[in-house]
Amino acid sequence: MRCVILGGAGFLGRHVGRAMAASGFEVWSVDLSRAVPEGSAPWLAGEVLGEFSDVPSWWEQCGGADVIVHLASSTVPATANEDPLQDVQTNLVGMLRLLQGLRAQAKQPRLLFASSGGAVYGRPQSVPLGETHPTVPMGAYGATKLVIEHHLRIEESLHGLPYRILRLSNPYGEWQRPHGVQGVIAVFAHRALHGLPLDVWGDGSVVRDFVYASDVGHAFAAAARHAGESRVFNVGGGAGHSVNHIIQTLEQLLGHAVERRVFPARPFDPPVNVLDIQRAQAELHWKPTVAFEEGVARALEWLRTVP
Amino acid sequence: MRCVILGGAGFLGRHVGRAMAASGFEVWSVDLSRAVPEGSAPWLAGEVLGEFSDVPSWWEQCGGADVIVHLASSTVPATANEDPLQDVQTNLVGMLRLLQGLRAQAKQPRLLFASSGGAVYGRPQSVPLGETHPTVPMGAYGATKLVIEHHLRIEESLHGLPYRILRLSNPYGEWQRPHGVQGVIAVFAHRALHGLPLDVWGDGSVVRDFVYASDVGHAFAAAARHAGESRVFNVGGGAGHSVNHIIQTLEQLLGHAVERRVFPARPFDPPVNVLDIQRAQAELHWKPTVAFEEGVARALEWLRTVP
Repeated sequence: MRCVILGGAGFLGRHVGRAMAASGFEVWSVDLSRAVPEGSAPWLAGEVLGEFSDVPSWWEQCGGADVIVHLASSTVPATANEDPLQDVQTNLVGMLRLLQGLRAQAKQPRLLFASSGGAVYGRPQSVPLGETHPTVPMGAYGATKLVIEHHLRIEESLHGLPYRILRLSNPYGEWQRPHGVQGVIAVFAHRALHGLPLDVWGDGSVVRDFVYASDVGHAFAAAARHAGESRVFNVGGGAGHSVNHIIQTLEQLLGHAVERRVFPARPFDPPVNVLDIQRAQAELHWKPTVAFEEGVARALEWLRTVP
Repeated sequence: MRCVILGGAGFLGRHVGRAMAASGFEVWSVDLSRAVPEGSAPWLAGEVLGEFSDVPSWWEQCGGADVIVHLASSTVPATANEDPLQDVQTNLVGMLRLLQGLRAQAKQPRLLFASSGGAVYGRPQSVPLGETHPTVPMGAYGATKLVIEHHLRIEESLHGLPYRILRLSNPYGEWQRPHGVQGVIAVFAHRALHGLPLDVWGDGSVVRDFVYASDVGHAFAAAARHAGESRVFNVGGGAGHSVNHIIQTLEQLLGHAVERRVFPARPFDPPVNVLDIQRAQAELHWKPTVAFEEGVARALEWLRTVP
């Protein structure tokens, strides 16, 4: 069984690749860049440099695919709102081109898509958020994730492409770069390691859902073989953690206090966002295995190697 | 008060233009073609030939806008499924360009958008369909309408653009061309007038919601001045009509029987789709005024003038 990971050289791609290989797949990466440093992704059978949406450019080179994990994304919530057109052109149009390209293949692979449990639901009407919670995205990033979900459902009904959607909470862990605009744990941990203050909006009571990236990898491996009727699964850490708790955890691990810079609370931040993961537990027989404190410790250790 | 209708030269655009003019607006059309024949749209203060999405190309010529009615669409459900990429490129990307162009104007107009009550809900869980019914579009056309709705909500929350969405059922009436792939009443009526058989899938019991196009015009005029909190309104005829009832109505009006060609039922056609219009009645103080038999008679009279 061959698995092609679109975006296989990135932070999440590496965790998913390792989990898929451990689960018995021959794993390929299609990405715009190589997994670096060289030799650091021994689970990969091969890498193709290219656009995920241009199926003919990678399909034959990989030898086809039984399962495709689509992690490639050109945006994060902030950049999608700044330029919704670019978000649509790369992520939505890219997905439609991918579907078109797969339709042309003799055998349809199963397509696993990384959606966003933090973005597609919008402001929670109740917590934890189940998969049947209304989907009212508050930004362009979530709107694009949601319409892609609809197109996957439509594609299966019209053309038979099998798919599963994993709505991820906030993945974190080793290989997450600390210099982006996403990934509060990586950003905080790296700044704390370098004696820099942490930016907090409001009183730090905002609660979010974090899931260790290797657990996300195992969820994709389970979804690759799932045989039930469900198509959409929340994948989260199973509990919420406040910004204050993240900082306290870092302080404990570092053995010293960390400076905070406090800014006014942002009214568009919902106070709590935690995913209900019962469906994934029941149907994928999956659950998170890395406890929060352990995950933060692992992320911190890896970040010590990052300048 | 100035109203610019994007797609003002088309079937629905003419009805909306007349209603907006009757409601006191100075009405302009932005469309790829002119209203024909010349002089046939006396309610228009002016016409600009151009792409609706390219705001600078028409904004100054129209003298700006207090209200924009966006009816321009390059697809119908069947063509959107055949080419979802083109549907996204013209309708979604076009809307995002429109929003971007409006953001640049000093005063934000109110944007009224024609969405689809037949496409955004998907298979009805209960009938009639209220605005809070889950939105599970069965095709690319509905997926694009739905994501545009989300982007309008997001645009208002991030940039303050006021908007209203009218989810139309099946508009019909004079000026609807009988040679398209949409508009069963126009197609049936025109074929019946010319002694051609009518194509029926299944036993003709499928029920749909039809709304006379002049009533749709009045709904837009009401939405232009609506002051409440609601943003989304169903606009339908208030009752369902089966395919058999359409044919019987035509037979009564024509005074003779009409031949049918019966094909197997299509499994993807939901048996019933009727919109609940209570919200529009209560908040827009709008209701359909043209009874079904009268509307079909008017459509038939106009179609006598079409070769």
